[in-house]
Amino acid sequence: MSDTSEIGAAGRQLHLGAILEGVGADHSSWLDPELPGNASIDIGWYIDNARLAEAAKFDLVFVVDSPYITPDTAPHFLNRLEPLTLLSAVAATTSRIGLVGTLTTSYWEPYNVARQFGSLDQISRGRAGWNVVTTGLEGAARNYGREEHFDHKVRYARAREFVDVVQGLWDSYEDDAFPRDRQAGLFLDKRKQHRLDHKGEHFAVAGPLALSRSQQGQPVIFQAGDSSEGRNLGAAIAEGTFTSAQDFETGHAYYVDLKARATALGRNPDLIKILPGLVPIIADTDEEAQVIAQAAQGALDIDKLLVQLGRAFNYHDFSQYDLDAPFPNLSGVTLNSYKGHAESIIRRAQENRLTLREAAYRFGQWRLDFVGSPETIANEIERWFTGRAADGFLLRVTRPRDFALFRERVVPILQARGLFRTDYAYDTLRGHLGLPVPKNRYASREREAQAIAAE
Amino acid sequence: MSDTSEIGAAGRQLHLGAILEGVGADHSSWLDPELPGNASIDIGWYIDNARLAEAAKFDLVFVVDSPYITPDTAPHFLNRLEPLTLLSAVAATTSRIGLVGTLTTSYWEPYNVARQFGSLDQISRGRAGWNVVTTGLEGAARNYGREEHFDHKVRYARAREFVDVVQGLWDSYEDDAFPRDRQAGLFLDKRKQHRLDHKGEHFAVAGPLALSRSQQGQPVIFQAGDSSEGRNLGAAIAEGTFTSAQDFETGHAYYVDLKARATALGRNPDLIKILPGLVPIIADTDEEAQVIAQAAQGALDIDKLLVQLGRAFNYHDFSQYDLDAPFPNLSGVTLNSYKGHAESIIRRAQENRLTLREAAYRFGQWRLDFVGSPETIANEIERWFTGRAADGFLLRVTRPRDFALFRERVVPILQARGLFRTDYAYDTLRGHLGLPVPKNRYASREREAQAIAAE
Repeated sequence: MSDTSEIGAAGRQLHLGAILEGVGADHSSWLDPELPGNASIDIGWYIDNARLAEAAKFDLVFVVDSPYITPDTAPHFLNRLEPLTLLSAVAATTSRIGLVGTLTTSYWEPYNVARQFGSLDQISRGRAGWNVVTTGLEGAARNYGREEHFDHKVRYARAREFVDVVQGLWDSYEDDAFPRDRQAGLFLDKRKQHRLDHKGEHFAVAGPLALSRSQQGQPVIFQAGDSSEGRNLGAAIAEGTFTSAQDFETGHAYYVDLKARATALGRNPDLIKILPGLVPIIADTDEEAQVIAQAAQGALDIDKLLVQLGRAFNYHDFSQYDLDAPFPNLSGVTLNSYKGHAESIIRRAQENRLTLREAAYRFGQWRLDFVGSPETIANEIERWFTGRAADGFLLRVTRPRDFALFRERVVPILQARGLFRTDYAYDTLRGHLGLPVPKNRYASREREAQAIAAE
Repeated sequence: MSDTSEIGAAGRQLHLGAILEGVGADHSSWLDPELPGNASIDIGWYIDNARLAEAAKFDLVFVVDSPYITPDTAPHFLNRLEPLTLLSAVAATTSRIGLVGTLTTSYWEPYNVARQFGSLDQISRGRAGWNVVTTGLEGAARNYGREEHFDHKVRYARAREFVDVVQGLWDSYEDDAFPRDRQAGLFLDKRKQHRLDHKGEHFAVAGPLALSRSQQGQPVIFQAGDSSEGRNLGAAIAEGTFTSAQDFETGHAYYVDLKARATALGRNPDLIKILPGLVPIIADTDEEAQVIAQAAQGALDIDKLLVQLGRAFNYHDFSQYDLDAPFPNLSGVTLNSYKGHAESIIRRAQENRLTLREAAYRFGQWRLDFVGSPETIANEIERWFTGRAADGFLLRVTRPRDFALFRERVVPILQARGLFRTDYAYDTLRGHLGLPVPKNRYASREREAQAIAAE
């Protein structure tokens, strides 16, 4: 493996990821006749798309998740493969591309999470990432023996401690812990196996973990929260963030805010990659692409948009309001679900004096669309990148045609402009993202002790 | 997929599985120079061996597990891939062989287990199995926020309820729940999505699970407990058992007992496949094989055998006793770990008046060896099979040479005798094992309701 510890300083590079979400996180994508109806449960679909993304030199594939559904949930979430098993299968059938999976800290055990992501990191030889979420939907609690979901603040406190524990477990073995010396009969150097013995407010975990570190040291930490607590967590732990910016201004404000919060915590802000989700709608000309986008918009079902809008408010029932009256007053609705996103919707609906119908079309899809010719898409990407609204993008690749056009016609423009790699320079996700390999906490302690002893 | 519902009655067939345990669950296997020292964390090693087992038409590969280690744990367990991620990678690189992973009901959430094994079952297109264990080692508790491990009886009560919940979640969708009718705009038939709404003594889980059933309906349930509680659990839920019989008599007694318990519960005993673990030590002649076996035995380190023996007694320290005195009186030691195995060791040590040293050599390796020429090995297998001590075997395939000789020289003999398949007749693990596809509990209710309505 190449040493990536110096990359952070070597200049900015655009990063691209592909969100693999089968038949789509909205209610209409599955209608595309080019998309197999069983894409979300067909490992072949995921492997094919990961290989296409790898051939286009993408940094990573990304898998979203949620541990709760209702009969009205969007098609992809209704019936889909689980992220860690899915990414392990993709790991075995790709060789360079990063593999980022979403998993909630609210309903898992840190020891199991450390094992599974650590194992994915070994299976992929240093390509794993964990997108840390706390679960937005209240109903998830009832799948895990609880009557109520954890309060928003508690969720974020638990998440912070959870990640600390997992990262501590990942360091259980120093990199030279296994001499495997047959002559000497020495498999393990016991001094280099370490117990964490964590006892915190929310978790008590002894360790050690039965797994050594991969080529990239530890999986990369992603994070996706947008509330104030979410941003503080991201500033503290994230090496990448998946954001839901829906316009340049919002994206830029988030970018500046998150990097400032990270700097205030003593971190190097260049080592947090901010990656908004993006839906590219591409055609030969801008006009053609606009026609396609408007047709897609026109085909949307307002009832389903209201359901999707309601998801940010714990499935609040928006069908009770007049569609063409101003966006309703929601001061009585507790925001414990996707709090940051919900607050942002309310604020922007009020600022722009939107009706409920307008808000549903604008925010119901939870997404950022770039619409136009390949040149126009590349221009928008460059504008967000150079304007510090993004370090790259996570493409929602549900529509096969747009994903193909992006790979075949947009990526070459980005490459010609020197914004995006023409080949992989590294074998690990940390390498692709320009992130250093974290030192093992015990190895550095030992070196310090030796240094002191030597004085 | 072929309909396997009639197989159970179609005559007995021998089943073979390969236990993939890298550098070995004992302290000496890793010394074999043909075995890569990093086998336990190298996905390539697992994939290669799964493919070799598949080429030899084995029913399944099997992955053992334990969520607790100490510095003295045997090499494979010290540092290894986690079963579900590992098997998902193997699923993507094989096509017919079954994939059985071990996972404890003591330190997981049923909802997460149902999702991950259900997902593995979809990824492998109906080849998944879950080996249900309750965790023998007390220390595991401290990796999961508990001071003490669950009591033996509580563990088994939890396991029973846990499996019920998981199987209930697996039926969340009837097989025709997804019309995916683009014309009608109908992705899901909501009437065929079912909530479990389980509220039991140990778990409360609402559901539904966001995953439909695979080609084999549900993953196959394995089980490995040997205590009275363990056998009752196996009789109630197991479709396969991994047993630790160390001689024919013990194996036969277990076989008869378990099938009787299952019959008493109203189950068809032919639908539980009893599979002892087996270490084959093979050479051209019996004499040569005996020399190899004795050399291996002689190379064993008595201190490490005592540690391994202690593992059945929650790492009880056997080094405090005289090696050549009679096996110590352990009446003061609480048997909450591998209780059935520990009781069996005490009983057999007393019956045979073994010294501690003799018991350590005999039981410290926790295994059954068949030693001899390919013909002799095949004879032993046939004796156990026809004598109803086994329905097949799970081979510990750590030694590359013995695994090769087994595939190339023992399997053809078993095939020539009509005991073992010469090619796969099915694509699913249930197909290989002659187990029926379980009906979806909701579908049959509906059919019954229709039948009643029609009268």
